[in-house]
Amino acid sequence: MPRLLITGASGFIGRALVDALATRSGYELHAVTWGTPKVPLSEQVTWHECSLLEHKSVDALFAKLKPDSLIQLAWCADHATYWKDPANFDWLYANLNIARAFIRQGGRRAVFAGTSAEYDWSGQLPLNEFETPLKPQMLYGSCKLAAYWAIKGYFEQEGVSWAWARFFNPFGPYEDRRRLIPKVCLRLLAGEKQDFDAALSQRDFLHVDDVGSGLAALALSEVQGPVNVGSGIPLRIRNVVSAIAKHLGKEDLVSFSAKNSDEGAVVADVARLRDEAGWSPSLTFEQRLAQTCDWWQSQGLENKR
Amino acid sequence: MPRLLITGASGFIGRALVDALATRSGYELHAVTWGTPKVPLSEQVTWHECSLLEHKSVDALFAKLKPDSLIQLAWCADHATYWKDPANFDWLYANLNIARAFIRQGGRRAVFAGTSAEYDWSGQLPLNEFETPLKPQMLYGSCKLAAYWAIKGYFEQEGVSWAWARFFNPFGPYEDRRRLIPKVCLRLLAGEKQDFDAALSQRDFLHVDDVGSGLAALALSEVQGPVNVGSGIPLRIRNVVSAIAKHLGKEDLVSFSAKNSDEGAVVADVARLRDEAGWSPSLTFEQRLAQTCDWWQSQGLENKR
Repeated sequence: MPRLLITGASGFIGRALVDALATRSGYELHAVTWGTPKVPLSEQVTWHECSLLEHKSVDALFAKLKPDSLIQLAWCADHATYWKDPANFDWLYANLNIARAFIRQGGRRAVFAGTSAEYDWSGQLPLNEFETPLKPQMLYGSCKLAAYWAIKGYFEQEGVSWAWARFFNPFGPYEDRRRLIPKVCLRLLAGEKQDFDAALSQRDFLHVDDVGSGLAALALSEVQGPVNVGSGIPLRIRNVVSAIAKHLGKEDLVSFSAKNSDEGAVVADVARLRDEAGWSPSLTFEQRLAQTCDWWQSQGLENKR
Repeated sequence: MPRLLITGASGFIGRALVDALATRSGYELHAVTWGTPKVPLSEQVTWHECSLLEHKSVDALFAKLKPDSLIQLAWCADHATYWKDPANFDWLYANLNIARAFIRQGGRRAVFAGTSAEYDWSGQLPLNEFETPLKPQMLYGSCKLAAYWAIKGYFEQEGVSWAWARFFNPFGPYEDRRRLIPKVCLRLLAGEKQDFDAALSQRDFLHVDDVGSGLAALALSEVQGPVNVGSGIPLRIRNVVSAIAKHLGKEDLVSFSAKNSDEGAVVADVARLRDEAGWSPSLTFEQRLAQTCDWWQSQGLENKR
C-alpha cells in the first residue's frame, strides 16, 4: 500500500487534513509532530516525532519511512510574529531539506503549503495562479515565494510530480484565538461590546475542514504547480462579523464606526481546484460559520490559546 | 573608518572586486576565503577563514567584525554541476544567514549576487530589472531568485539599504577553463581545430575587472534593489569565437558548420548601473578580449582548471 507522509500534521490545517485523509482507503498514513501538539492527534495515522528544522533528523525520518507521497505543511505560524520573523528563513530551508530527502528516497508526489500572500494584492481579482504577478509585501510571503521557486525548480528538474497549495483565509476549530473569527466569537460570547472600523475589506474564507478536504483531493490528484485553496467568494469583514453576531444573538454588542478603512480585497480564482483537482466545498459559508460559532461556544471561554 | 566585508572573495568575481576596492580609500577592507583559493589573494585586505555554510561560523564572524557594509558573492560555482546541484539550497540558506547576521550586528548597506538566469529569457530584450518577468529555467536560477525574494523582504522590513547585482557573462583572468572564452583560447593556443555549430545565439559579455569595478561602484552607491551588471551589448557567440581566433592568428583552426543552432539572446538593460550607480566600462569589448587572450597565453597550456 503506498505510504503518505504528512509533515506539520499537528497544526490547524494539519488536523483537518489528517481527518480528511483518514476517511479514504488505499494509503498507509504517517504524520509528523514535534513539541506540544496544538490539536488532538488522530489515532488513524502513525505518528512520528521529528524536529523538521534539523537537517539530519529530516534525512533520518525519510530514510526510515521512504514515503511515496508527501504533504508538507510545517512553517512558523505564531500569530503574533510569523509575518516578520527571520525564522521564516529556517522554515524555508527546512522545506528544501524535506524536498531533497523526499526525492532522494524515491518519493513520487508531493504537495507543499504556499499562501495568498505570495501574490500582488493591488491588481485585478480574482488572484490567478498563472496570471497574477507574484509580489509579496511581508517577509512571510517573501519566504513562501522563495520556497515556491526553489521547490518548483527542483521538482521540475527531477521530474517528480508536485503541487503548491496557496491558502487564503481558513477558519474553524482550533484556529488561533487571536485571529478574527475566534476573537469575535469569544468576545461576543463573553458579553463584550466590540467596535470596528467600516470593515469594508474583503477576504476569501474557507472552513478548515474544507481546506483539509480540498488539499487531500489535490494531493491525490496529479495536478501540478500552484493551486489556490480558497472559496473564490469575496466576503466583507463587516458582513462576517455581523453574521457571527446574528448567529450568537449578540447583534447589540457590535458596532461599526464611520471612519474609513482599508477596502482591499483578496479573493482566489478557484478554477484549478474545482475543475482540475475536481473539488468544491459541500456546505455554504453560512453553514460553516454557524458550525464554527457553535464549536467555539462548546469550547468555553477560558483563554487557552 | 567604515568596515567593508566581502564574502566569497576568493572566487573569479571576488578577485576582481577586491582589486577594484583596494584602489579606493576610506574603507577598512575585510574578506572571507575558505579552502583552497581559486585566485591569488590580495595583500590589501585582511583575510578571514570562515565556512559560510555553517550558521554558527557565520554568526561568529559577524559578531567579531561587525561590518558596516557587505558584498556577498559566495555560492556553489563548479562549472560542471552548479546549474542543477541541490547544494544550491544550502547556498541559498547561507545567504539568508549572512543577511541575518549582518543586520543583527548593525550592518547598514549590503549587496548580494544574483544572476541573469533569474529572468524569463523568452521575451523582449534587453532584460530590465523591473519590467522583465522573473522566470528561471534551471535550479541555479530558481535558488538565486528564491534568495532575491527572501533578501528583499528582509532588508525592506528592517529598513537596511541593499542591492541585488544580476551578473550576465563575465570573462577574463581566472575564469573556469571549461567555459567558452578560456576553452576556445586554450584550444587554439594548443593548435587544436575547433568546429562550432552556427553559434548565432547572443550573450552579454563583460570583462571581470569591469564587473568588479561596476560592483564596487554599486556597493558604494545607495542604489537599492536589483541592478544588472553587464555590458548591454549583444554579441554573437560566433563573432566572439572569430575575434579570439583573429587575435591569436589562428583563424584557420576555426569553422562553423551549417547546422542550425539556438538563436536565443540574453542582454542586460544597463541603464540603472550607468545612470543611477554612475558606472560604465572604460575599455571596449575588443580591447578586453585581446587582454584576455594575451593573459591566457601568458598562463601556459597545462590544464590547471
